[in-house]
Amino acid sequence: MTEFTSPALDIALAYHQAWTSHDLDKAMTYIADEIVCEAPAGRLEGAAAYREFMVPFVQILTSSKLIAAFGDDETALVMYDTETVPVKSAPGAECVTVKDGRITYSRFIFDRAPFDAAREAAN
Amino acid sequence: MTEFTSPALDIALAYHQAWTSHDLDKAMTYIADEIVCEAPAGRLEGAAAYREFMVPFVQILTSSKLIAAFGDDETALVMYDTETVPVKSAPGAECVTVKDGRITYSRFIFDRAPFDAAREAAN
Repeated sequence: MTEFTSPALDIALAYHQAWTSHDLDKAMTYIADEIVCEAPAGRLEGAAAYREFMVPFVQILTSSKLIAAFGDDETALVMYDTETVPVKSAPGAECVTVKDGRITYSRFIFDRAPFDAAREAAN
Repeated sequence: MTEFTSPALDIALAYHQAWTSHDLDKAMTYIADEIVCEAPAGRLEGAAAYREFMVPFVQILTSSKLIAAFGDDETALVMYDTETVPVKSAPGAECVTVKDGRITYSRFIFDRAPFDAAREAAN
């Protein structure tokens, strides 16, 4: 795991640590009310929409492992792998902007294909 | 675009610059013969397999934009957006290990879902 300390990275890692520990309440303390998140399925605006997006993922999360994390004053870039109930390896990457200790913007990348396949197989 | 200079990042960015300029021959000069790449569709081993994986993507690539890039001595983490013929916004993230000026390992994340959808729509 490669890690480089920075103000933005501290927040990104605290956020990461919280949601991967299934503590979404704590995770949301690092998310700005006005967060904008560009996720694979589209743009999310506001903390409520962001939380709604995270809830089902946190529910199926069984474990996670940080792959690399870097940052500077305002930006952090984090890559990790997750294991979930339907998908054994579901890595993700997030590039976040941090202002006043909270994440105001997140660009979020993961592969939806194995989740789509698991959903189809279950139906 | 956030950028942090490091030996590994220099190589990652030179590689990135080459393939996003459609110069796969030059890009491959930064790829180790024994590269291992963990991509969404599975594990690729060796420069020939890696090149084969990149060729169709470079062919449909119309533009790209670096979102963030960081690195240290041996590791670089890069996120970018690409525009391709079938998919308007296809962002990717790569975490690479660099040894002796070449990328020996790459963890590669992108969302296959919009490519799958475009392929289905075309059939």
